[in-house]
Amino acid sequence: MNQKLLHNFIVEEHIKNSLKEDIGFGDVTTDFLYKDEDYITAVLNTREAAVVCGIEVFRQVFSVLSDKVSVKTFFSDGDFVDKNTSLAEVSGPARAVLTGERTALNYMQRMCGIATQTRRFQKAIEPYEARVTDTRKNTPGFRMFEKYSVMIGGARLHRFNLCDCVMIKDNHIKHAGSISKAVEIIKLNLSHAHKIEVECDTYEQVKEAVSAGCDIIMLDNMTVDEMKKCVQYIDHKAIVEASGNVKINTINDIAATGVDVISTSAIVAQAPVIDLGLDIL
Amino acid sequence: MNQKLLHNFIVEEHIKNSLKEDIGFGDVTTDFLYKDEDYITAVLNTREAAVVCGIEVFRQVFSVLSDKVSVKTFFSDGDFVDKNTSLAEVSGPARAVLTGERTALNYMQRMCGIATQTRRFQKAIEPYEARVTDTRKNTPGFRMFEKYSVMIGGARLHRFNLCDCVMIKDNHIKHAGSISKAVEIIKLNLSHAHKIEVECDTYEQVKEAVSAGCDIIMLDNMTVDEMKKCVQYIDHKAIVEASGNVKINTINDIAATGVDVISTSAIVAQAPVIDLGLDIL
Amino acid sequence: MNQKLLHNFIVEEHIKNSLKEDIGFGDVTTDFLYKDEDYITAVLNTREAAVVCGIEVFRQVFSVLSDKVSVKTFFSDGDFVDKNTSLAEVSGPARAVLTGERTALNYMQRMCGIATQTRRFQKAIEPYEARVTDTRKNTPGFRMFEKYSVMIGGARLHRFNLCDCVMIKDNHIKHAGSISKAVEIIKLNLSHAHKIEVECDTYEQVKEAVSAGCDIIMLDNMTVDEMKKCVQYIDHKAIVEASGNVKINTINDIAATGVDVISTSAIVAQAPVIDLGLDIL
Amino acid sequence: MNQKLLHNFIVEEHIKNSLKEDIGFGDVTTDFLYKDEDYITAVLNTREAAVVCGIEVFRQVFSVLSDKVSVKTFFSDGDFVDKNTSLAEVSGPARAVLTGERTALNYMQRMCGIATQTRRFQKAIEPYEARVTDTRKNTPGFRMFEKYSVMIGGARLHRFNLCDCVMIKDNHIKHAGSISKAVEIIKLNLSHAHKIEVECDTYEQVKEAVSAGCDIIMLDNMTVDEMKKCVQYIDHKAIVEASGNVKINTINDIAATGVDVISTSAIVAQAPVIDLGLDIL
Amino acid sequence: MNQKLLHNFIVEEHIKNSLKEDIGFGDVTTDFLYKDEDYITAVLNTREAAVVCGIEVFRQVFSVLSDKVSVKTFFSDGDFVDKNTSLAEVSGPARAVLTGERTALNYMQRMCGIATQTRRFQKAIEPYEARVTDTRKNTPGFRMFEKYSVMIGGARLHRFNLCDCVMIKDNHIKHAGSISKAVEIIKLNLSHAHKIEVECDTYEQVKEAVSAGCDIIMLDNMTVDEMKKCVQYIDHKAIVEASGNVKINTINDIAATGVDVISTSAIVAQAPVIDLGLDIL
Amino acid sequence: MNQKLLHNFIVEEHIKNSLKEDIGFGDVTTDFLYKDEDYITAVLNTREAAVVCGIEVFRQVFSVLSDKVSVKTFFSDGDFVDKNTSLAEVSGPARAVLTGERTALNYMQRMCGIATQTRRFQKAIEPYEARVTDTRKNTPGFRMFEKYSVMIGGARLHRFNLCDCVMIKDNHIKHAGSISKAVEIIKLNLSHAHKIEVECDTYEQVKEAVSAGCDIIMLDNMTVDEMKKCVQYIDHKAIVEASGNVKINTINDIAATGVDVISTSAIVAQAPVIDLGLDIL
Repeated sequence: MNQKLLHNFIVEEHIKNSLKEDIGFGDVTTDFLYKDEDYITAVLNTREAAVVCGIEVFRQVFSVLSDKVSVKTFFSDGDFVDKNTSLAEVSGPARAVLTGERTALNYMQRMCGIATQTRRFQKAIEPYEARVTDTRKNTPGFRMFEKYSVMIGGARLHRFNLCDCVMIKDNHIKHAGSISKAVEIIKLNLSHAHKIEVECDTYEQVKEAVSAGCDIIMLDNMTVDEMKKCVQYIDHKAIVEASGNVKINTINDIAATGVDVISTSAIVAQAPVIDLGLDIL
Repeated sequence: MNQKLLHNFIVEEHIKNSLKEDIGFGDVTTDFLYKDEDYITAVLNTREAAVVCGIEVFRQVFSVLSDKVSVKTFFSDGDFVDKNTSLAEVSGPARAVLTGERTALNYMQRMCGIATQTRRFQKAIEPYEARVTDTRKNTPGFRMFEKYSVMIGGARLHRFNLCDCVMIKDNHIKHAGSISKAVEIIKLNLSHAHKIEVECDTYEQVKEAVSAGCDIIMLDNMTVDEMKKCVQYIDHKAIVEASGNVKINTINDIAATGVDVISTSAIVAQAPVIDLGLDIL
Repeated sequence: MNQKLLHNFIVEEHIKNSLKEDIGFGDVTTDFLYKDEDYITAVLNTREAAVVCGIEVFRQVFSVLSDKVSVKTFFSDGDFVDKNTSLAEVSGPARAVLTGERTALNYMQRMCGIATQTRRFQKAIEPYEARVTDTRKNTPGFRMFEKYSVMIGGARLHRFNLCDCVMIKDNHIKHAGSISKAVEIIKLNLSHAHKIEVECDTYEQVKEAVSAGCDIIMLDNMTVDEMKKCVQYIDHKAIVEASGNVKINTINDIAATGVDVISTSAIVAQAPVIDLGLDIL
Repeated sequence: MNQKLLHNFIVEEHIKNSLKEDIGFGDVTTDFLYKDEDYITAVLNTREAAVVCGIEVFRQVFSVLSDKVSVKTFFSDGDFVDKNTSLAEVSGPARAVLTGERTALNYMQRMCGIATQTRRFQKAIEPYEARVTDTRKNTPGFRMFEKYSVMIGGARLHRFNLCDCVMIKDNHIKHAGSISKAVEIIKLNLSHAHKIEVECDTYEQVKEAVSAGCDIIMLDNMTVDEMKKCVQYIDHKAIVEASGNVKINTINDIAATGVDVISTSAIVAQAPVIDLGLDIL
Repeated sequence: MNQKLLHNFIVEEHIKNSLKEDIGFGDVTTDFLYKDEDYITAVLNTREAAVVCGIEVFRQVFSVLSDKVSVKTFFSDGDFVDKNTSLAEVSGPARAVLTGERTALNYMQRMCGIATQTRRFQKAIEPYEARVTDTRKNTPGFRMFEKYSVMIGGARLHRFNLCDCVMIKDNHIKHAGSISKAVEIIKLNLSHAHKIEVECDTYEQVKEAVSAGCDIIMLDNMTVDEMKKCVQYIDHKAIVEASGNVKINTINDIAATGVDVISTSAIVAQAPVIDLGLDIL
Repeated sequence: MNQKLLHNFIVEEHIKNSLKEDIGFGDVTTDFLYKDEDYITAVLNTREAAVVCGIEVFRQVFSVLSDKVSVKTFFSDGDFVDKNTSLAEVSGPARAVLTGERTALNYMQRMCGIATQTRRFQKAIEPYEARVTDTRKNTPGFRMFEKYSVMIGGARLHRFNLCDCVMIKDNHIKHAGSISKAVEIIKLNLSHAHKIEVECDTYEQVKEAVSAGCDIIMLDNMTVDEMKKCVQYIDHKAIVEASGNVKINTINDIAATGVDVISTSAIVAQAPVIDLGLDIL
């Protein structure tokens, strides 16, 4: 519940696979030391400040293991919390709590890490209207959680995958002959419900992209001055996306150019895992 | 081929799921711009120095998409290479190459990242005999690739999951009454083919763990001095594992205490992704 | 090969499930009457005129059953053929050919049916520039084949599913308060790579939708006169989609209004299956 | 509940796959416009007369999405209802109701369509004792729902797949040498729990099939007069199945010949989808 | 190839799951001791006399692991071989051969065991025409291999599962009111392509079953004399199946009563595993 | 609940696959004879003495079919019960009870069989401290249930699969050159959390294995006198496992040699199925 984009039955399937990966033929420590009727309570605490993310995924890990575990949550996804904050309390059969602990934390530490990193980048471009956005540089099999965490962190999402937006890159352009020709072929075939983005390295390409009528223009690896010039030329005829070598200390200058979105893999691929602990009472 | 621990048919299934995640209903850019008979060649280049890891996974991504792609590899997993090194050449139908590009890189960038980070940590404890080892703090669903990369990076692997080694932690000890009682219960139930590890916070616990006859003693969050004292006491009666707050600049001091293995999640959870590019010729 | 949007490894998985559905514990007729070494040749013939569609899916059904079956194809997807045309020749082990026959035909008859029906609708709006498009009224689990067939039939595809384009309907509007408010909320959250479509029942709504800046305006169940008026008002500020009660004999009048796309479930949900036969030589 | 042949846990798996097909990475309209706590009520109405079919599948789609949706049903599968009849009321979280709407309707419209078409054919042969039956010309992956709908429509089901009844066709006969030889081989191998059906094109073949002792004789593409003659000859020594070019306006004449079952793909492959709507209150 | 009823792509899926069960995160012995280029040859030998069964499944286990393994087979399924007979030779990468060894043997030892046991029972009723048949008392998830082995052993197969033949038991009869009523209800609903079997405990029930027109009559736990009497009464109006307490030393007397089939779980559930070894050259 | 090692969500998946195997397109007997609202009660009775095993799996089969079935259990796994003991009472919809009956029994009869056979072997070595242990000679796909049953029967489990313990056999030794070399290579690569077992045929090999520092020494096919000599030599420096030709009447002599564990496939592969019945009240 309360999870935009993440549907419970889909998350559940992912969790089951992860738990199988960690359980194998059984938890040979906990299964032998605890009886079925032993109950425990544990508290999920932050060991550092973080944007909360994945609290419902955390809950669902325990639900998969036992319908007798109850998880009270004290914060919601998107909340910013300090170090040593209690996020949730887990009560139920010791076997379920202890067997699920590592998997539940593995999800949530990564999700908090991405949300926290994303917010850091988004904050760095205040007060500009530009929005940070992500890329497709995801961990294979883990994209839905990474995309969700980026959203919770306050960025806009870029396309989900290869089928929901066209992205014309340099090879495509060379192969088609020109940006105009590439866009023309695409427009003939593409759904009217999808957008076309073109990667441009130069001002000249930007001009061609505008006249070809594409929806999004990516300024790839341009200097801040080049970007400014392009933004002025485009003048809201397309959405402008800055890309390439976006760092926490350069992003504000990029935002100042007037681009609409700034895409970077740093908010996912370089997000440090947040340290969380499940403390048994 | 050539992949210890990673079996092709298991990797293939993982790749198929990742490709489905990225392809959805089809690659609306490449499918519309290239014809079936268009062939291209591309080279996989490093953008920074790295320990090569995942080269066969990279190859297999393209094999899943088309049996007409051929991948020549110039290095093997475990090789250390410089920035701007060509690792492999991919030739085949443009559709397969371009549609698979991002997924192939997503696997390999993470795998190289972990192998490189692991080697850094292992190098940092030369000339001691101690070996770095990993933890279960993995990305859900991606553990087999993370474990493999740790191995390629030169560390020893810790247990794969909850079923191949017992790990008695503080809650288990409290619940059982004492380390001795916990070990006793476990020995009655456990396979003779499995080891028992006990997490110890104090010198007193270490003494009890030794007399209980456990196989591995983890010194959890101890100071270097405490560790030294424990190592001397244990005197090869059990394998000694140091754990807690292991950093690249503290690990050498830890190794100097004489412990056998030093476990840290930093080699996986904090490994920066290696920058690789697939350059179309 | 040669299939835009349909990837072999994804199609293969679908085929395997369909074959399992039809084979159960084995083909008790063919398995008992033919020996492994019996080979046959069969020809795929049309029993009525059709747009060819699914020829590679047809081939792949037999490949799944045996790598000894070879399928020569005489036409490609998108070709228009007459009654009694030979589309392909299948040679190989009798068991594979006879066991796969029904499943292979079941795919292809439906795919040809949809492509043929789609072309009929698209032809009916010549010489207008409008394009027919489909809906999400698909057979559960069979959408990728239905979407593909619509594309082969010459229509534009509408969105693939709930995640690649926003579609604001009357309930959404009521809930948000107005079209403008709904669009505003969406723009704050949505990927910049996705489009927004709004369903409008009235001219007033169309005006609001234009000023809200949405990408596609659906004219829902309007008369031809209303549509004309709306098209003039919109004046290329958004893509115009006509929807509702689109029939083969009314579609030309709709196209004449100047709308860009005309969506209808009739090209999929009411497409008659094309009669094809596999004649054993 | 209340569904002969369709087991909940099997249907659930099918629904999950269909929902995943339609949801992808999330419903970008509804998820952004509704909050978790927004509840709505909607009514399922017929837009044309129909045999109700799939009402429990409809219910289960929403259950998969949320355990907080409740569905009250006013009719059961098999009931005949008029245009503008309310079949069910759905109440629950708006997200679940709106996200599930299309998938739920996609199942039910097809199921009602087949049940309605089947009843039309079955009615057309009153007052004869003959029963309509279906074929294996199903939509790949959707057979269990199509078979179920045929049963609800009042026809008898033919074999489910290749493993529950032998069907000896012309190629089998040619290969074996004769009907008698084919039946002999089959009887040696086949389960005693399975029946043998033989496709006959001529009166001579029918005679041979009877003497070979097969259980069902299919009269394939015979004229009404030929059928009569065969029925008389067979004289209840086998079940007689008429097949080939069965149309709504020819079926009564076929039934009048005294055949036991009349098989036709028209009740599935040519069943028009029934128009249903989910009207939000 | 050469496997009636067992389709390669279905067997392959089963093998993959079994290998995953045995491999987990990798074969920590063989993977570390052998290099990719080490090749070995091994011979599959019987340690006791057996009916060969599963030789193609054995081959396929190694194919799944590596396409470089070749398996030469010297006998086919159904052959009777002595102790110390070489059945096949496996050559290829040592890793594939050694990792697959146990799984390949696990399939084949059970399959040979069942085929051998089945032949023993079938031989025991010579020279009568009666055929042994199996039951549904299978190992969950392993039925297709058990059914196949029964067929190879020379018995007839009983129904595959709950959906290909009706079996009316005592509870069904009590619930319906009588055998006649149960059969009547079933006939109204059932496919004309399926048979009806009734379990009868008494001569009276047998009479009712005959007059109800069922296809198979099971004489459940009757004495040899009772069976004889029933067989005479039934007089080929239905297939007669004997069931209950069938033992290797009583089965000939049962066959002598003239029953058509004798069903027993002993050929599967009590079949001793055949001792086979894979001897590395 | 109450099941060490067996996790409900993993067992549930196995059960669903087994039920699908047995149900196919539906239970054509029970579905047609019973209505949804018909309820029955049945009792699970032993037909012979047994160690109870699998009672929760039995329960879960019915839960998968319907959440309206309740199962009261009178005994727990591990209890020894006599012939004609009532183990559980099942109440609920007749369709769920009758459709699930065979599958539920198929699991439990095999599980009780293995537990009973295991206890027989374990009892046979009283009063020695040695423990019986199993092997990897399992039914493919059914290992988790077989391992669990061995544990319930009172034996120790051997390794679960190829990845949780090293087992160096004769081929490995020959390939490496010697036991010492093989162990050395393994120690360099292996997780410190895993044990190393070496198969020894001779006293000389045992001496080498001890000096190589392996954890477990398997005495393979040795005479009782040889075993005694080896046990004395090893003198608790490694765990001693006896293997080869272990029979119920020889196992006590083996235990008397002082070995720690005695491994045998007889407790699984030769365990007779226990006769259980579900008697409808």
